[in-house]
Amino acid sequence: MTLRNLLFGRPLASSEDQEQRVDPAQGIPIFGLDALSSAAYGPEAALTILLPLGAAGIAYILPLSSAIIVLLAIVYFSYRQTIAAYPSGGGSYTVAKENLGERAGLLAAAALMIDYLLNVAVGISAGVGALVSAVPSLESHTLGLCLLILAALTFVNLRGVREPGVLFMIPTYLFVACLLGVIGWGVFQVIATGGHPHPVMAPPALRPLTEAVGIWLLFKAFASGCTAMTGVEAVSNGVQAFREPVVKAARTTLTVIIATLIVLLAGIAYLAHAYGIGATEPGQAGYQSVLSQLTGAVAGRGIFYYVTIASILTVLSLSANTSFADFPRLCRAVAWDGYLPRSLAIRGRRLVYSEGIWVLAILAAVLLIIFGGITDRLIPLFAVGAFLAFTLSQAGMVMHWRRMRGRGSRSSMMINGVGALATGLTVLVVLAAKFMEGAWVVALLVPLLILLMIAVHRHYERVARETAPALKFLQTGLKTPLVVVPIETWSLVTQKALSFGMTLSEEVCIVHVQCENVETPEGHWTHAVAEHARAAGRPAPKLVLLSSPYRFVIHPIVDHVLALEREHADRTVAVVIPTLVERHWYHYFLHNQRSELLSALLLVKGDRRIAIIDVPWYLEG
Amino acid sequence: MTLRNLLFGRPLASSEDQEQRVDPAQGIPIFGLDALSSAAYGPEAALTILLPLGAAGIAYILPLSSAIIVLLAIVYFSYRQTIAAYPSGGGSYTVAKENLGERAGLLAAAALMIDYLLNVAVGISAGVGALVSAVPSLESHTLGLCLLILAALTFVNLRGVREPGVLFMIPTYLFVACLLGVIGWGVFQVIATGGHPHPVMAPPALRPLTEAVGIWLLFKAFASGCTAMTGVEAVSNGVQAFREPVVKAARTTLTVIIATLIVLLAGIAYLAHAYGIGATEPGQAGYQSVLSQLTGAVAGRGIFYYVTIASILTVLSLSANTSFADFPRLCRAVAWDGYLPRSLAIRGRRLVYSEGIWVLAILAAVLLIIFGGITDRLIPLFAVGAFLAFTLSQAGMVMHWRRMRGRGSRSSMMINGVGALATGLTVLVVLAAKFMEGAWVVALLVPLLILLMIAVHRHYERVARETAPALKFLQTGLKTPLVVVPIETWSLVTQKALSFGMTLSEEVCIVHVQCENVETPEGHWTHAVAEHARAAGRPAPKLVLLSSPYRFVIHPIVDHVLALEREHADRTVAVVIPTLVERHWYHYFLHNQRSELLSALLLVKGDRRIAIIDVPWYLEG
Repeated sequence: MTLRNLLFGRPLASSEDQEQRVDPAQGIPIFGLDALSSAAYGPEAALTILLPLGAAGIAYILPLSSAIIVLLAIVYFSYRQTIAAYPSGGGSYTVAKENLGERAGLLAAAALMIDYLLNVAVGISAGVGALVSAVPSLESHTLGLCLLILAALTFVNLRGVREPGVLFMIPTYLFVACLLGVIGWGVFQVIATGGHPHPVMAPPALRPLTEAVGIWLLFKAFASGCTAMTGVEAVSNGVQAFREPVVKAARTTLTVIIATLIVLLAGIAYLAHAYGIGATEPGQAGYQSVLSQLTGAVAGRGIFYYVTIASILTVLSLSANTSFADFPRLCRAVAWDGYLPRSLAIRGRRLVYSEGIWVLAILAAVLLIIFGGITDRLIPLFAVGAFLAFTLSQAGMVMHWRRMRGRGSRSSMMINGVGALATGLTVLVVLAAKFMEGAWVVALLVPLLILLMIAVHRHYERVARETAPALKFLQTGLKTPLVVVPIETWSLVTQKALSFGMTLSEEVCIVHVQCENVETPEGHWTHAVAEHARAAGRPAPKLVLLSSPYRFVIHPIVDHVLALEREHADRTVAVVIPTLVERHWYHYFLHNQRSELLSALLLVKGDRRIAIIDVPWYLEG
Repeated sequence: MTLRNLLFGRPLASSEDQEQRVDPAQGIPIFGLDALSSAAYGPEAALTILLPLGAAGIAYILPLSSAIIVLLAIVYFSYRQTIAAYPSGGGSYTVAKENLGERAGLLAAAALMIDYLLNVAVGISAGVGALVSAVPSLESHTLGLCLLILAALTFVNLRGVREPGVLFMIPTYLFVACLLGVIGWGVFQVIATGGHPHPVMAPPALRPLTEAVGIWLLFKAFASGCTAMTGVEAVSNGVQAFREPVVKAARTTLTVIIATLIVLLAGIAYLAHAYGIGATEPGQAGYQSVLSQLTGAVAGRGIFYYVTIASILTVLSLSANTSFADFPRLCRAVAWDGYLPRSLAIRGRRLVYSEGIWVLAILAAVLLIIFGGITDRLIPLFAVGAFLAFTLSQAGMVMHWRRMRGRGSRSSMMINGVGALATGLTVLVVLAAKFMEGAWVVALLVPLLILLMIAVHRHYERVARETAPALKFLQTGLKTPLVVVPIETWSLVTQKALSFGMTLSEEVCIVHVQCENVETPEGHWTHAVAEHARAAGRPAPKLVLLSSPYRFVIHPIVDHVLALEREHADRTVAVVIPTLVERHWYHYFLHNQRSELLSALLLVKGDRRIAIIDVPWYLEG
């Protein structure tokens, strides 16, 4: 326990809940890392698709980014509303379930779970990938580094909700400050030079035009750019992690995250256009990320450049933390409704949903191991889940406002309706654009996950139905039980079991299996039993001798007990098992484990009227 | 069960014991393979030591073999007597224990166990080694082949005592017939040619003289030649495997085995001398076994030669079977006296001591794996154990006759006395000659094994002492127990447990742990309980609410029960645990295992006045 306390901290009492909660300053690193870090890859993903258009392609980044920012704003307003409407935590699952029905809720949950899981694997993998491209000698340790970061994130999150908030604050704010610095200085330069800035470091030359502009290409670029929006829904799910007033704190956090993200996205698009920065071919020699080009063009390759790049890499690796903050909460909500194992709804010793953290860590580790720590192929699977969840959440809010009526509900409904439509269309675009590349996996996994959750729910419902409390429960059950005491040898252990059995009922029967290697009781201790019973004024226990031609000891007893149960339809059969408990594991080689086996077999083979009573005996010292 | 029956045969009833027993014809392959096969390596081992003497060395094989044969005859008479004296199985362990005391018995047992174990590893390894030298392409599979033969022997022996008897009869008798044929024809040739036979295939030239004859060299040759005597004691240990009249059958078997072995040893020595056959350098190019040279010299390299060599190889590999027949019987005798785990004394489904077979197989497999299937280095460890056992057995018989007195006891005592002296001296010679080569391992292992057996015995004695039946056992124990029913939620499962608890005692207390995620009982089902109890004319169960600030559910209950036990020194506390039994393993993810954990924890942490009652509930279908 001491080591455990040292590693994970002392157990936290439920009453310490409030002290464990966070303010917006900590909430931003906890819930915002995923969203903010996507500024580092969203625009780049769009520009990569535009590569074949050469210099002409860069022009399209402005309208594409504008569209994404508008979508982001709509989603923002929607989640702002859900936070107020569901202050106990209103992620897409809750909103969809409450307003569109259980199945819609499960669809949202499944989509989000897959999204969160992918986010862990891809986030860590991207961070390590960037590190490895900077320090190529680490390449052979890619998987090991990924698993190390995963273990660190798991560990930090298991220690409680505040730990990652405090720990990841510095890299998060450094990242935001650096990027805002680049953007601010860059915009000033552009304005000062009348729209024709001179890059300190000239970006690499753009590829020549190889393809004509097509609507499909733009759609694909838009779909890729939309990865910038993943992680936006985290705050609305984690409202309960914030200090009172929770709604205000959560809303502030969401506002800061989205506002920062919008400024970053807009600034990057504007400067990319002004400086003529495009993507470079990923995975090829001479590859340089868009943010690296941009920082170099605006500020040159001084110390600031390296600090900025380092902060980007750190935030990328840590973006997985949003999943760790939110996946367990999502699971908790689903488990609370009985669609996932109930234990996912239990808060662990540090007041976090530890089991959900473990599940996420294990699944992510499996993914990372399968893909050897290089998850490029998983990126197309991304975003589908997030946008599906957005759509369901917005559609849910439309129904919500429709039911609520009242002031402002009409305009809210409008906003959410437009949002649902826009994000819904985006799902279709993303699915169509990336179906063959791998989005089909998500399209396959989501229904499977839903089926699993439904099966779990059915099982719980069945158990609840079959174990529903009876209205009259004491009338039938108060006959004293038939007591069966299996005795192999006569000792203090069996004596104790027999005396205990005789306190329970007047009808006690001793069962003895006759086979070689076992002393026969007749004339030995049976007399003693009868005599003592007489002296104590009790009826003597009946002795049943079972023959065992094949030297089995346990099965004849089980069969006898089952037969007794069948014969006496109105009685409970209590089997009193004398058990010698060994204090050392190696002593288990020295004694048969017949009592344990008998207990287990009766438990499995028995029916509802058999009770198993272990009467333990311990050696001294 | 069907697959098990198919593989190992149907279970055998104890009453089928007689049909399972064997006659001498089957007993010879079962108990004699070790002894008989040693004709193939005993003389060779002695001749190898004599190598430095060149042609002159061969002359010494006659007196050396004579000495060994005399020793063998003494040991034979001794075991013949022990068979009659201990018809229920009288190996060295029993004889030494009965006549010289427990410690002497344990010494014999430890020595024999190590001998049997080594015999398995060395026997199999020798057979595979010979096969590999014939078919070199198999060399990389040495260990695999060893383990395969080990598995086959284990399997055959697990199927019952008769199986190896029937299965190994043909190779055993073929081996004896071939060797007797070679010896008979050879002796005829020698006599016909007046002592100067012409070899059909001339044996390889002997090494030139490089060393003078010394007494120490002869001692070493004698010690090596003594390996021919291992396995002789098997029959006396396995008397109970024979059909009635057991003593006669066992004696006949022993006589045939020893007589055959003596003829083989004498014949080989005589012919080696007559034909001038010595050992060749083992492990060197041009190596050829003595028996191969001999067969070639007498009969040439025709079909008979190859049949003979094949039968020798087969019998070598199967010589391990003697250990499989005897090791479990030895363990059984020791376990019966409480010096080894009792389960070794239980006959399995096929009436053999299966656990002993498994122990031997596993230990031998470990040895083979450690040595990679090449156990040459184990050979020096051999024979020490066997001769130690011989010595103790003979010494025991001396004491036996001394106690018995009567007709012939004086001469019997003389024979055994000479035997004890001779074998005792041989132990010293073998130990001295081979101490540095590895016999020290045996000298180390034997005491360790004895210490282990004494520790086991002490434990059993302690348990027997502490659990000895009390003279008065019902006077104190007949107060009804305090019943504790931990209830988490109110359902049919807990209702059933509660009603059962209420049949056991009037003093029932419901324990409920209050923490988040668990519904609070007040005003919900507590009323129902009280009302129903009143209706049934019983006192209402007391409700104890335990708070759990850290959300632990099990520990507060355990602490409460332990406190109750302490408070009520004269009462038993019966904890009734409602248990929902799942029929499918995967359902275990869906329910907490708190009832199992609580059972286990109470069993381990509890004291002598806590009884644990599992009241199971099962889902339908």
